[in-house]
Amino acid sequence: MAEMKLHSEAAVGARYGRPADPCAIVIFGASGDLTKRLLVPALYNLACDGLLPRNFALVGTALSDMDHESFRDQMSKDIRQFTTRDAFDERVWDDLVRCLYYVPGNFEDPATYRRLAQLLDEVDAKHQTRGNHLFYLAVPPVVFSLISRQLGQARLTDEEKGWSRLVVEKPFGHDFESAVSLDGDLRQHWQEHQIWRIDHYLGKETVQNLLTFRFGNGIFEPLWNRHHIDHVQLTAAEKIGVEGRGNYYERAGILRDMIQNHMLQMLSYIAMEAPTSFHADDIRNGKIEVLKAIRPLTPEGVLTNTVRGQYSGGTVDGNVVLGYREEPDVSQTSHTETFAAAKLFVDNWRWAGVPFYLRSGKRLPKRSTEVTIQFKGAPEVLFRDTPVERLEANKLLFHIQPDEGIELSFQAKVPGPILHLQTVRMHFEYKAAFETTRGTGYERLLYDCMIKDPTLFSRADLVEIAWKIAQPILDVWSSLPPRDFPNYPAGTWGPRDAALLMERDGLEWRNP
Amino acid sequence: MAEMKLHSEAAVGARYGRPADPCAIVIFGASGDLTKRLLVPALYNLACDGLLPRNFALVGTALSDMDHESFRDQMSKDIRQFTTRDAFDERVWDDLVRCLYYVPGNFEDPATYRRLAQLLDEVDAKHQTRGNHLFYLAVPPVVFSLISRQLGQARLTDEEKGWSRLVVEKPFGHDFESAVSLDGDLRQHWQEHQIWRIDHYLGKETVQNLLTFRFGNGIFEPLWNRHHIDHVQLTAAEKIGVEGRGNYYERAGILRDMIQNHMLQMLSYIAMEAPTSFHADDIRNGKIEVLKAIRPLTPEGVLTNTVRGQYSGGTVDGNVVLGYREEPDVSQTSHTETFAAAKLFVDNWRWAGVPFYLRSGKRLPKRSTEVTIQFKGAPEVLFRDTPVERLEANKLLFHIQPDEGIELSFQAKVPGPILHLQTVRMHFEYKAAFETTRGTGYERLLYDCMIKDPTLFSRADLVEIAWKIAQPILDVWSSLPPRDFPNYPAGTWGPRDAALLMERDGLEWRNP
Repeated sequence: MAEMKLHSEAAVGARYGRPADPCAIVIFGASGDLTKRLLVPALYNLACDGLLPRNFALVGTALSDMDHESFRDQMSKDIRQFTTRDAFDERVWDDLVRCLYYVPGNFEDPATYRRLAQLLDEVDAKHQTRGNHLFYLAVPPVVFSLISRQLGQARLTDEEKGWSRLVVEKPFGHDFESAVSLDGDLRQHWQEHQIWRIDHYLGKETVQNLLTFRFGNGIFEPLWNRHHIDHVQLTAAEKIGVEGRGNYYERAGILRDMIQNHMLQMLSYIAMEAPTSFHADDIRNGKIEVLKAIRPLTPEGVLTNTVRGQYSGGTVDGNVVLGYREEPDVSQTSHTETFAAAKLFVDNWRWAGVPFYLRSGKRLPKRSTEVTIQFKGAPEVLFRDTPVERLEANKLLFHIQPDEGIELSFQAKVPGPILHLQTVRMHFEYKAAFETTRGTGYERLLYDCMIKDPTLFSRADLVEIAWKIAQPILDVWSSLPPRDFPNYPAGTWGPRDAALLMERDGLEWRNP
Repeated sequence: MAEMKLHSEAAVGARYGRPADPCAIVIFGASGDLTKRLLVPALYNLACDGLLPRNFALVGTALSDMDHESFRDQMSKDIRQFTTRDAFDERVWDDLVRCLYYVPGNFEDPATYRRLAQLLDEVDAKHQTRGNHLFYLAVPPVVFSLISRQLGQARLTDEEKGWSRLVVEKPFGHDFESAVSLDGDLRQHWQEHQIWRIDHYLGKETVQNLLTFRFGNGIFEPLWNRHHIDHVQLTAAEKIGVEGRGNYYERAGILRDMIQNHMLQMLSYIAMEAPTSFHADDIRNGKIEVLKAIRPLTPEGVLTNTVRGQYSGGTVDGNVVLGYREEPDVSQTSHTETFAAAKLFVDNWRWAGVPFYLRSGKRLPKRSTEVTIQFKGAPEVLFRDTPVERLEANKLLFHIQPDEGIELSFQAKVPGPILHLQTVRMHFEYKAAFETTRGTGYERLLYDCMIKDPTLFSRADLVEIAWKIAQPILDVWSSLPPRDFPNYPAGTWGPRDAALLMERDGLEWRNP
């Protein structure tokens, strides 16, 4: 029987909260990138903060032929490369590495699951993990249904001894129909409360902070509606291209990869009604209500209110880069969009008439995710007969990445005897305010799953509603192939039509 | 005929506005501190910015026996000591100094005014100042009425050739009755539009910015009322004692010196309704409406809602300092207050039920003038069952001096897997945002007087209403002499009762 020792570093965790529930985490795809880059570093961070349970084990499983020792050796090498912390704590890792196990095997072979079940019995006994199992699918979506079924057939879905949870990473389906079908597959062996759909964007501090900002402060909620807000902009810009993932990307496109999930999630946090509590289902119900209120796009609406783009070769940061169609594993006549923008309306009492402009793209000039709330302007009549010609409207900015922060722009008087106004900014940076250890973004999500807090995880109904919103766009785009691709050079802010989408309304994108 | 040349520096002024109207300024008390420390440096700054009229002259008058040349020499020496600019512009000063004149004389002697009138005729001709005269009383208030009458008798009040304005510095009277009497004296020879009452606090950028902040931005006005604001605090703290001005201070006290004028002015900017325009009388009417709405204090109200204090010896910045009664020219049994605090209500639709707490004191730990708007808190029910125990209410801070800036405090999530909130700040500093040349605070006021913009000057009715608010406090305090003076040591935040004034309401002062 081995327990993880809690070292002095763990005392730091005391101010955050209790360690999570005893459990064993099983990672399918343990030899892959996600495991070494994000999951294990996140678990290590939780251990450093005293948030990993004392009774804990991690079981990796993959096709690679490793045993417990070689898996531990590999992870010990990888953690030093991928840890997000400056100072590496050997003692914490030494304790953690002793809880690592490995089961090699083919995911199609029932024997793999029998070996896994047997190992879990041993681990449960040795580490007192109480039969609590968390199965993390760090694998391509094509095998989601397969592993889910095999786990069911091996009765690892049972919750008689302890709990059993299945963590699934997006994409949750390829469109509405396939999402429903995937969910049907999972639900043959798992109940909804056992299925944990991760959207790693929700692990970001500023996304989480949207709710505390809105509802932990008295002054924003009174302004948070169509009476005071002119429009909302959401931008998720990437500087990179497809980075060798052409194969995946050709089947996805940015609408599926970013807009349907991350960006609609962000939108729902910004637009939701005040929940009755911060309990998971109060928040998730609130988000779903927002998505249900989004005005469905008609085919004509898709043509006028959405824009798609694909990058050609260009220059990013002074480096010449390939066009999308020249990337490996990409068709030379590809119709896959690497840029998308949409104008949506949330048709409820709070938001009627307030447009939400969303855009995301690859090979844009800058990596930046941000939300801009643009308020309505002050009446200018007051400044008639002064040298002030125009009042800029207030903007509230949430910088989500890379630098998390909040910024409020307002008009201030330029010092001097004559009345001139200038837009200035009050700003707040997380980095400056908090002594934080950078994380992978997975800490909170793994912890929440272990303590059964599904707030940040997507319920099946939310996934399906989000697909319903995206479906008309997918349908029109696939039936009317783009004629102008590629239509923006790498290193620019997307196709001209994206700018027009706002210019038509007398507005412009705020470029980060 | 001489004109001030406009040098390249003057081009900078072009972005602010036009030079003021041609005029000659006459300073009574030209050998005093105000002239060399503030007025002449302010005029020099206006010249640097191209805001001084091309047709300009400055006539100093005082008892000292000087001629034009010796006055110019003295001012040329003083400007180098008291200029607020780092780089001194010889060319601008050379042009300005040629416009300086001096008339020696006794203020009681009609011959002084005859000589002055004669010089002004010459100056008007030489500098083409068009008979526009601005008489600035940089003298003790006891001679206000005298000079005003003599100017009238010398017909310098006439506006037949050009305009004639009288600038008066506070104190405007010693109480309500004497204020009415002083105004009566002035009005025997001057019309209200000719009388310009300066409150130099209104020359401060942040005070002026209160209006542009409130009405140039769309997001503050909806929150600016009793539905969203819990209370307002105004603090004007000085670190210094009476600094050898015991003689003046014994007759004044801080209620007269700070609260009745500066602080009620600030309060009126914070509390006024949106004016129809930024024209002088729209703003001044708005301010007067606020002061009229302040609930008059009954004698009982004075006892419960005001606090007075006087400092004893103590330590400020590690230095032992004298108590007030030990200062030169101060009675050893003095009842003069060096600290005052009051809780006032503005009984109108916007502010009913919102207390305004004012305090000012000498020998406090820090020099700082600031306004705190404390908003109402968010409902805490949302955070029930989270580790968050208490939500701090949002505060909006206007730092008026020494460092002008605006700050908004709000609740943000502490990064980490567990929900904890912390109060953080968005802030904006004038110094950081604008490349400003520090001024004396008089530039705007002198300029406004020259272009006939009385916005920042006090109308007679405002002065009288402000005295009406202070009068019950003066009456009760003089009929019930303090029994506990001195009641706060130098270097502390005033008497215990000042803290109690807020503690009774479950609040506390924000100490800068």
